[in-house]
Amino acid sequence: MMNPASSPLLTDLYQLTMLQSYYEQNMTDVAVFEFFVRRLPDKRGFLLAAGLEQVLEFLEGLRFNDEELEWIKKSGRFGAGFAERLAQLRFTGDVHAMPEGTAFFGNEPILRITAPMPQAQLVESRLINLLHFQTLIASKAARVKLVAPEKLLVDFGLRRAHGAEAGLLAARAAYAAGFGGTATVLAGAQFDIPVFGTMAHSFIEAHDSEEASFEHFARAQPGNVTLLIDTYDTEACARKVAQLAPRLAVQGIRVNAVRLDSGDLVAHAKAVRRILDDAGLGEIHIFSSGSLDEYVLRELLARGAPIDGFGVGTHLDTSADAPYLDCAYKLQEYAGRARRKRSEGKATWPGRKQVYRRFDAHGTMTDDVLTLESDRQQGTPLVECVMRAGRRLRPPEPLAAIRERAARSLATLPAHLRALESSPSYPVTISDALTALAAEVDRAREDAAA
Amino acid sequence: MMNPASSPLLTDLYQLTMLQSYYEQNMTDVAVFEFFVRRLPDKRGFLLAAGLEQVLEFLEGLRFNDEELEWIKKSGRFGAGFAERLAQLRFTGDVHAMPEGTAFFGNEPILRITAPMPQAQLVESRLINLLHFQTLIASKAARVKLVAPEKLLVDFGLRRAHGAEAGLLAARAAYAAGFGGTATVLAGAQFDIPVFGTMAHSFIEAHDSEEASFEHFARAQPGNVTLLIDTYDTEACARKVAQLAPRLAVQGIRVNAVRLDSGDLVAHAKAVRRILDDAGLGEIHIFSSGSLDEYVLRELLARGAPIDGFGVGTHLDTSADAPYLDCAYKLQEYAGRARRKRSEGKATWPGRKQVYRRFDAHGTMTDDVLTLESDRQQGTPLVECVMRAGRRLRPPEPLAAIRERAARSLATLPAHLRALESSPSYPVTISDALTALAAEVDRAREDAAA
Repeated sequence: MMNPASSPLLTDLYQLTMLQSYYEQNMTDVAVFEFFVRRLPDKRGFLLAAGLEQVLEFLEGLRFNDEELEWIKKSGRFGAGFAERLAQLRFTGDVHAMPEGTAFFGNEPILRITAPMPQAQLVESRLINLLHFQTLIASKAARVKLVAPEKLLVDFGLRRAHGAEAGLLAARAAYAAGFGGTATVLAGAQFDIPVFGTMAHSFIEAHDSEEASFEHFARAQPGNVTLLIDTYDTEACARKVAQLAPRLAVQGIRVNAVRLDSGDLVAHAKAVRRILDDAGLGEIHIFSSGSLDEYVLRELLARGAPIDGFGVGTHLDTSADAPYLDCAYKLQEYAGRARRKRSEGKATWPGRKQVYRRFDAHGTMTDDVLTLESDRQQGTPLVECVMRAGRRLRPPEPLAAIRERAARSLATLPAHLRALESSPSYPVTISDALTALAAEVDRAREDAAA
Repeated sequence: MMNPASSPLLTDLYQLTMLQSYYEQNMTDVAVFEFFVRRLPDKRGFLLAAGLEQVLEFLEGLRFNDEELEWIKKSGRFGAGFAERLAQLRFTGDVHAMPEGTAFFGNEPILRITAPMPQAQLVESRLINLLHFQTLIASKAARVKLVAPEKLLVDFGLRRAHGAEAGLLAARAAYAAGFGGTATVLAGAQFDIPVFGTMAHSFIEAHDSEEASFEHFARAQPGNVTLLIDTYDTEACARKVAQLAPRLAVQGIRVNAVRLDSGDLVAHAKAVRRILDDAGLGEIHIFSSGSLDEYVLRELLARGAPIDGFGVGTHLDTSADAPYLDCAYKLQEYAGRARRKRSEGKATWPGRKQVYRRFDAHGTMTDDVLTLESDRQQGTPLVECVMRAGRRLRPPEPLAAIRERAARSLATLPAHLRALESSPSYPVTISDALTALAAEVDRAREDAAA
């Protein structure tokens, strides 16, 4: 079986062709690659690092199984002995990273791989794939959280997430960034994330009446009664709930909430709140869903919608307003010499890097310095060693700890970066040491070329 | 092990809570659900159906394994006997669908599930997740293909696809829509899609010179030599290739192509073409990549860039200009009675539906009629039965057949829909029979409510 999540064949062909060449030339010296985002999307003032745990799992488990090796041999693309070399391949390198939940900015590395070239090169595609996606979603979720910090926020995005893993890991990334939970059951089973659920319109339509469907549902799930009230007429249905809830209460069943999913959510929420309050049902919450994102939430809250919780789906799980990051995994050093790419508009900073973050007296972030690992600067270093010679330095970090770090990150952001439209951008200074190294690398190359 | 791609726990919690209620009420009559896109994104004039094969695999394999049942029991969310009912659950229903590669439009069902309610409900989340994504990507890829029908188009998107499955299935969807192949090795191994690859900048940077890296690469991969020439100075590097290629030819190694990945691709391609042609190397192709999509390709070709092939990555695999579809899987009938949802702005057409497509004398599509399955209309019916009582009616369709169907779909689109900005929208008529049924369903509900 080739499991896409762990198969080393989930990679770009050029990784394998380069690997073969590296093996043939015995170019197996230590390479240093770093993952970073070149430039933040226009609609993001900061990003939140996420996905490191899945990267470490991937590296720990890296190996070609028999079926994969068989494919390599049969493909006719590779020379004799290549499959045998691959059969021995394990990840034996070091990993440095910003812990998940750390806010970061353009050009700042959130992951560094230090390993023999073939290993460090091979893992590129999947490492980008993992870090890019969770960072993308955590960063989007953080914006939703900043807009509605006191509300229950639930990831509803599985169905329009891009595939199975995206649905699963979006739930993780959103929870890490401060969401209260997800509707995705497997995310509960695998990551112990709180799982929330209500009912679908089909459930109501399959019954002869809304009342009948609500009673059936409440009896089957007495501890979890959220009733969907917009299938036909929202306010009329709210009045049915106002009559039903006391009857259910007599049977010991409490209606927790009603859910709105269509129409003018502000008007409906206000009308429904009044209907419920007039019936003495102030304890029934109003939950809402339907094409929500941080912009809609800001508008709903500004207009005074009495909504207690939100299911945020498609726009979260696809990061719809910025569905990708301009990220890269680039060679910084090989065989002890710093390297850089100089392609137009895509030049990179060479060497093993560190980011120092500085704070003002109130604990608010003021600026970062991007420099070499060897160049100690003032401030808090953000990149730390998490894996040495292929082994983790500590057990997997609990999601609760990542959530706390993310909350701290958001709390210490400068005020203007906490807004949805955030400018000016956060200051990241390139150190003199780094500038000097870049010039040195360029000079050495020009000398070699001359 | 809970494999996200096949686990029935990759679903929304409400599917399970509704299931429990259906079981308790013995509401296990036949339900009919249909999957459709409500409205096309502004930036799409048509969509291309894709993902059916993965849906059928999912339905065939549907079962809860021991670990999943254990989680259900331990979760404390469900009543006694629920896990035991789930242990017996298999998919025993019928599937009707438009074959993959069929062009379709708003409100037209591309999949219908006819099955006992609990089965038909449970599979909703994953069915949407599968159909939505591949349809999204096939539709995006079709636009790229329409802009550059004669060029080699290769999916380069794995690294920024949203997770492992997205990377893998984007390769499949793009190939189905007419791409020539992918860089994703696993897509080659699993779907027998042609796999293409070149080299990364890191490979060149790790060497002391571009020439050395090219020579090493060419010797390791003599049948597959595409050289990346933009790492430092594109034109200077093209001149190096012009000197190197004849030397390699003597050794029996042919340079197939050079790749451009940055800067002004039109200017670079023209200059590089001239350098190669002047050296008598007209047979070396120019391949290009770097933030490409159908808009950029149109511009490059309009400006006369002599580029023979394109690697299209991020924008393809995330469908960046329209990263989701407003799609739904809605109850159309339960226990023999048609049903519909009437939520504001989200009302659906009830009943089991069929789409008839009409063509003019030249074979060009003129219009569709959306009607009931029982209402025969003129034209070609697009929805057909593909699974009966849980068993496929035919073996999995080869990707080659899907590609051919997609090519025919694109060839028969009205000319204005083949443009990137396509308006007016394609005409889809709602039949009288369908309008009458919707009115009847509404009347019956109002009678029941009175």
